[in-house]
Amino acid sequence: MEIYTTISEIKEFIKSKKLVGEKIGFVPTMGYLHQGHLSLMKEARQDNDIVIASIFVNPTQFGPDEDYDEYPRDLDRDAELAAEVGVDAVFAPEADEIYDSGAATTIQVEGLTDKLCGACRPGHFTGVCIIVSKLFNIIAPDHAYFGQKDAQQVLVIKRMVKDLNFDLEIVIVPIVREEDGLAISSRNKYLNQEERTAATVLYNSLELARELIEQGENKAKVVENKMVEMIKEEPLAKIDYVEVVKQETLESVTKIKDKILIALAVYIGGTRLIDNVMLEV
Amino acid sequence: MEIYTTISEIKEFIKSKKLVGEKIGFVPTMGYLHQGHLSLMKEARQDNDIVIASIFVNPTQFGPDEDYDEYPRDLDRDAELAAEVGVDAVFAPEADEIYDSGAATTIQVEGLTDKLCGACRPGHFTGVCIIVSKLFNIIAPDHAYFGQKDAQQVLVIKRMVKDLNFDLEIVIVPIVREEDGLAISSRNKYLNQEERTAATVLYNSLELARELIEQGENKAKVVENKMVEMIKEEPLAKIDYVEVVKQETLESVTKIKDKILIALAVYIGGTRLIDNVMLEV
Repeated sequence: MEIYTTISEIKEFIKSKKLVGEKIGFVPTMGYLHQGHLSLMKEARQDNDIVIASIFVNPTQFGPDEDYDEYPRDLDRDAELAAEVGVDAVFAPEADEIYDSGAATTIQVEGLTDKLCGACRPGHFTGVCIIVSKLFNIIAPDHAYFGQKDAQQVLVIKRMVKDLNFDLEIVIVPIVREEDGLAISSRNKYLNQEERTAATVLYNSLELARELIEQGENKAKVVENKMVEMIKEEPLAKIDYVEVVKQETLESVTKIKDKILIALAVYIGGTRLIDNVMLEV
Repeated sequence: MEIYTTISEIKEFIKSKKLVGEKIGFVPTMGYLHQGHLSLMKEARQDNDIVIASIFVNPTQFGPDEDYDEYPRDLDRDAELAAEVGVDAVFAPEADEIYDSGAATTIQVEGLTDKLCGACRPGHFTGVCIIVSKLFNIIAPDHAYFGQKDAQQVLVIKRMVKDLNFDLEIVIVPIVREEDGLAISSRNKYLNQEERTAATVLYNSLELARELIEQGENKAKVVENKMVEMIKEEPLAKIDYVEVVKQETLESVTKIKDKILIALAVYIGGTRLIDNVMLEV
């Protein structure tokens, strides 16, 4: 497996593959790979001739008080894991290879980005849109793989791809969970043992919601309140949001019907975790 | 020459050409072609295997009080002219082929778009960036051609192409002028005979500026004031802006040196015309 750190190198690699008609699958990541990322890469491996993963902790999607500097990084380990699941090339540039000092362009996806994580992380999705656009133009993939765990990100990127006519297909891969249900995330590493146990409350509250809805509950407020109640019983947890919304638009619903997304963000100690479930009622 | 009106058709055409390694030159236009557009197409004809021109009056770059509805359109004539200069395919979609009702993405190029035309046409460059990005992703050209007449547009697009890593080269083609110096523009058609005569004041004031600078004048304010004086002598003219700015950043200059752009926008009757000259001092 090759590791490229410059745009010109990775483009040359891709060009040589496209010239012989090979299909490119692309998995953008911020590295510190876990089973969630690897499931994207395995899926990409099945659908494409060439699989490229990017490993880039993107500064523009972190707020000034967020964890850009402390975000975990381990390129050697990442490269090993990526190679094991059949990735052909890793693109791991430094920040100044990606952003030049005169950069002035921003991309907004209006509406979708005001809600859920967008409300408490201003600028986050603008940073996501810029880096994803840049990587799409550099890699020019046929398929690009994203995890359902970042449900809002998935919707924002799909909308952007449609609006800007990117010539590629977005593939969404299900959430990978630990045995006790915790959604796998690079940020789980921040949790101490006590917090790790407390963190199961995110998944458990989603399961509670699913059960309530399966039993016929159709008022979003009731479901949200029961989830909030359960989470509040966990002393280490602090709720950012718990919401039942429409899947495509992320608009709040009062009555639960059709395709809904139940999404939450909860601080466990100092670590902000997210999780979600999609249901069709 | 082929005329395509759907994205899927033009993409299929392009795919067939790329498959055999042909280079694509692209000339985006709003139609009602004149010698300025044709000079772009001729330039594209020289550099590429395949030349594609788009003809699309882009609603998102017009303000609510601007001339979107009245903007001149004549596809049959345009197709004839494009064919004459060797264009291989015209892409002429309807607005609803390009913009769907849920479109939510905007692109901003900060700094460059606040100045000159950006100051008096809010949203104009956002609309330009969106349509150009969409067309770049649909056509995937190797080279794209723009006229120097829209000097600010050229800078904004070059910045966006760099910031989003579009895999193409922007080629800038000089302004084409009538015999009396008037820059050729689709909007010249709005001018009655008297206004047409008055409109030469734009070019004449630029020529005055050039002469003053050649004679050693180095104060931007002096040059701007003399231009303004000349334009104000023309009763049909009403100045929007007259500015001496740095070529790359569009920032105002006080002392004229290095690479400068002298740009102006002037209403002649109800028609807003722009023109510019680039100098290196």
